[in-house]
Amino acid sequence: MAEAMKGLHRTHRCTEVSNQNIGETVTVMGWVQKRRNLGSMIFVDLRDRSGLLQVVFETKDIGEEGFAKAEKLRNEFVIAAVGRIEKRAGAVNENLATGDIELRATELRILSESETPPFPIEEDSQTKDELRLKYRYLDLRRPDLQRNLILRSKVATLVRNFLAEEGFLEIETPILGKSTPEGARDYLVPSRIHPGKFYGLPQSPQLFKQLLMCSGYDRYFQIAKCFRDEDLRADRQPEFTQIDMELSFVDVDDVIDVNERLLARVFQEAIGVEVPLPIPRMTWQEAMDRFGSDKPDTRFGMELVDVSEVVKGCGFGVFIGALDNGGSVRGINAEGQGAMPRKKIDALVNLAKDYGAKGLAYLAVNEDGTYKSSFAKFMTEEELSALVQAMQGKPGDLLLFAADQNKVVYDVLGSLRLELAKNLGLLNKNQFNFLWVTEFPLLEWSEEQNRFVAMHHPFTMPMEEDLELLDTDPGKVRAKAYDIVLNGTELGGGSVRIFQNHVQEKMFEILGFTMEDAYERFGFLLNAFKYGVPPHAGLAYGFDRMLMLMAGEDSIREVIAFPKVKDASCLMTEAPNVVDLKQLDELSIAIQAEE
Amino acid sequence: MAEAMKGLHRTHRCTEVSNQNIGETVTVMGWVQKRRNLGSMIFVDLRDRSGLLQVVFETKDIGEEGFAKAEKLRNEFVIAAVGRIEKRAGAVNENLATGDIELRATELRILSESETPPFPIEEDSQTKDELRLKYRYLDLRRPDLQRNLILRSKVATLVRNFLAEEGFLEIETPILGKSTPEGARDYLVPSRIHPGKFYGLPQSPQLFKQLLMCSGYDRYFQIAKCFRDEDLRADRQPEFTQIDMELSFVDVDDVIDVNERLLARVFQEAIGVEVPLPIPRMTWQEAMDRFGSDKPDTRFGMELVDVSEVVKGCGFGVFIGALDNGGSVRGINAEGQGAMPRKKIDALVNLAKDYGAKGLAYLAVNEDGTYKSSFAKFMTEEELSALVQAMQGKPGDLLLFAADQNKVVYDVLGSLRLELAKNLGLLNKNQFNFLWVTEFPLLEWSEEQNRFVAMHHPFTMPMEEDLELLDTDPGKVRAKAYDIVLNGTELGGGSVRIFQNHVQEKMFEILGFTMEDAYERFGFLLNAFKYGVPPHAGLAYGFDRMLMLMAGEDSIREVIAFPKVKDASCLMTEAPNVVDLKQLDELSIAIQAEE
Repeated sequence: MAEAMKGLHRTHRCTEVSNQNIGETVTVMGWVQKRRNLGSMIFVDLRDRSGLLQVVFETKDIGEEGFAKAEKLRNEFVIAAVGRIEKRAGAVNENLATGDIELRATELRILSESETPPFPIEEDSQTKDELRLKYRYLDLRRPDLQRNLILRSKVATLVRNFLAEEGFLEIETPILGKSTPEGARDYLVPSRIHPGKFYGLPQSPQLFKQLLMCSGYDRYFQIAKCFRDEDLRADRQPEFTQIDMELSFVDVDDVIDVNERLLARVFQEAIGVEVPLPIPRMTWQEAMDRFGSDKPDTRFGMELVDVSEVVKGCGFGVFIGALDNGGSVRGINAEGQGAMPRKKIDALVNLAKDYGAKGLAYLAVNEDGTYKSSFAKFMTEEELSALVQAMQGKPGDLLLFAADQNKVVYDVLGSLRLELAKNLGLLNKNQFNFLWVTEFPLLEWSEEQNRFVAMHHPFTMPMEEDLELLDTDPGKVRAKAYDIVLNGTELGGGSVRIFQNHVQEKMFEILGFTMEDAYERFGFLLNAFKYGVPPHAGLAYGFDRMLMLMAGEDSIREVIAFPKVKDASCLMTEAPNVVDLKQLDELSIAIQAEE
Repeated sequence: MAEAMKGLHRTHRCTEVSNQNIGETVTVMGWVQKRRNLGSMIFVDLRDRSGLLQVVFETKDIGEEGFAKAEKLRNEFVIAAVGRIEKRAGAVNENLATGDIELRATELRILSESETPPFPIEEDSQTKDELRLKYRYLDLRRPDLQRNLILRSKVATLVRNFLAEEGFLEIETPILGKSTPEGARDYLVPSRIHPGKFYGLPQSPQLFKQLLMCSGYDRYFQIAKCFRDEDLRADRQPEFTQIDMELSFVDVDDVIDVNERLLARVFQEAIGVEVPLPIPRMTWQEAMDRFGSDKPDTRFGMELVDVSEVVKGCGFGVFIGALDNGGSVRGINAEGQGAMPRKKIDALVNLAKDYGAKGLAYLAVNEDGTYKSSFAKFMTEEELSALVQAMQGKPGDLLLFAADQNKVVYDVLGSLRLELAKNLGLLNKNQFNFLWVTEFPLLEWSEEQNRFVAMHHPFTMPMEEDLELLDTDPGKVRAKAYDIVLNGTELGGGSVRIFQNHVQEKMFEILGFTMEDAYERFGFLLNAFKYGVPPHAGLAYGFDRMLMLMAGEDSIREVIAFPKVKDASCLMTEAPNVVDLKQLDELSIAIQAEE
């Protein structure tokens, strides 16, 4: 029984009225958040994007017919109410921006009725995710999700305006691109006009933004949709958004400079967080050595200590074996955790094993200075004492050691460090610690593929001082690559690009591409490089992840209007779905039976 | 032979220096546009995004080694040059912003060499399109394309900032959506995780933006990528960009108001064109009657005149036949074209036939007041005179008449009118005539499908005064739909949406959908409408087309960085391409042999 809006014009959103408007007649429109019928009076909390306003219905103001209509109101009805703003007759509600006023309705229209929603529309929903996502259009009415999407819009505006001021041009690159598999799987789009051929959806605008530099656009950015058909992993989306940029005639410091100012501006203006500049920098090697991670969370200490020198020659075979195999022994000090029960320590040991360790050695310094340890019996008192000293162990501390190849040791202790911090409540969501990690390895060895793969991507420039190592020891070459890390999350990353064809060809050679392969996939880039390329560099942020951290959420789904679930489906629209055979015929494709 | 940039830092873009900088030492970087070697002096026009700067190399400034390096320079080499800005020694070049100065180089680095480009990098390229698009990265270096893409970026910024000021939120909607065929063909994306199922790429964010209104976001916008797998037509792109918006608690006038202010702001600030407000409005019926088009070009007159009443009862069978069949006879007056040669008139007759006419009747008013006409012999002197008078025919005018069903008459005369205006040079690219066309028919009859189809889309609201006709005479129902037309091009369009489920269901019924069909395709929208929907309306602009008109271009390819050609392929990347069988196997699809 929807009434028309005709003749009415909304004058304010709900919280655009305040005690400044007392005595004025206003027209508001929105959803019924809550309704209390006191018999002779009906109170409605009216909700719109801006917040809540109390609307009061009483026969003396609105007449009997109007009051009768108000009696029909239920949650989520959409109404228009006309009336005078007055000082609130009842107690002031301190929780509301409009808590000291109310609207005394003289006219009511029911614009749209509502069935009872399947879950309450309220802050901090306890509804389970599946139901929320099926009814996403109702979930999106909740104030916390609305705040997140309003923040998202605001951040996008801030980013765009800052970059425009800095001379960046926003240039759109194609979504229907060429499939150039390297790294993750491409989503494919069959071509109807060219049977048997496919477009690939872009994993990033990488090649196009480099071409734009070749074309002289100087500074490019785009808030770009990217696509990766990856295997199921928690909190990944098949489509995600990047703040993508590329700059010509620059080196590492120029990219870092403009991005530090961007981050400072955005965090200050969007969420009031000051980012002290310059942001600290750390080489990849230092990050691994101190934090066991290439994206260290620097909100807390508990740094790794290399005790290889200290334990060298001790009687503990596990330590000695690791050193003999070219590995290391390192530890972390969980201060004050010396009394951790055996059960919890066992959980840590299991976690260590999940990360590839054969075991985890521990030593608790008791309050009386004695030790409780899994390996004390293999070492002398002096050896133990030297070890504890190296770890700055005090009575009450718990020392945890991993002994293995460096990669395993980093992984294990880096993960333990985070797990302990989480358990101990050391992770303050209101603290924002930024960090640049630089000088990443150019390549990493893939056991699976038995070849080097690019750590960032094949267009990353090696550091000048390591160029000679490309021929002799490629695994040692460092790259002009940088990541920006926030609280242990990689917020973005980028690199200076190779802009000389001979270096690019060498890179493809090391990656095991034939030149034919390389030209087949990236020929247009390699050809473009024949006609004068400026030195250039860039960076891309994970926009969803940045917003998740800014909003203090634990999942990127909370900052995306219509997210997909773990199996890449949309519970609301039921995409992907079955299509007509006719559509497939037109595309010259058929569905293969499952084997 | 690429030299490193190390130690140098660009201080200015080429045209960021002026005679204010005379005496200063600057560092510029860019491409060699032109090089003249006068033996003892070498002149280089250095190009970057901002424009050109003359760089002079002479041994006394740069030494012999530097001069020898300068001798190697060729077009499109990328260089860095350091030197002093001086008053130009030679004649001032009035065509250049930097025409009165030059840089006398004291240091030169060749950052990148270039082969000879396949076509010259210059304004107003005469190169054929295929070559330009194959080497798009070189084509994009041309100043006119750079101006267009800079304009595009600027307009996007203006649009976003205006809409943000007006309380619109930018909200991203999914690219991997659900295929809901109605209208054009969807592009499909096979799902790997759900074999046999497909995503559809969105033809527009229509359903999602309506859901966002249901969710209370109040004002939404997005500069959104949309996709249509249409048959080959000149100047269509398989992916295109829309400025998309939706507003809650509004009616037609509110949408028009905010969009008029948007257009005025954007055209003024981007290209200095003043848009007088309010923009004129015309109903669809008036547009058809006066211009034979639902997107009239109002830069010139030559309006249609209905002469049915005048010729009623005349002796010309063609006219009488059309009237007897329920059609009409209408004409246009091509003023001053009475002497048009027979050959040209025949071309017009053929054009009319292309648009469905059986023929075209003409009458030229000779300078002596006599007539030259294809049908004069069938009419009396009085009848002819009345006809000429109705058409305001003067000596020297050419009158053209179509007699048929209204639809054919509109099409034929509307097209003739445009063709004549083009031939007569009446279309001034620097004039910008905006027009709102309103009150479109809700439905149009599809002979092919033997049913009504939605003229805009199935969610368009009928005009309140025509609601009753939905049951009795649906073809007569007018819609709350509006298009914004610029110089005869549809710039954008939109409508007030149906927000009551019973009207929506009636609409689906008229369109011949079963409720099962409707729910299968749009179930999430219909379900959302059960929980309180605000009245809402929206509009979407073709962003590419808007820019084409602003830039004065004839093709949208000139305002898109990486466009596709008519067969939806990219000549530069060669997308779409053949992919690995392994990729298809993972997606559980196979290529069907062509039949």
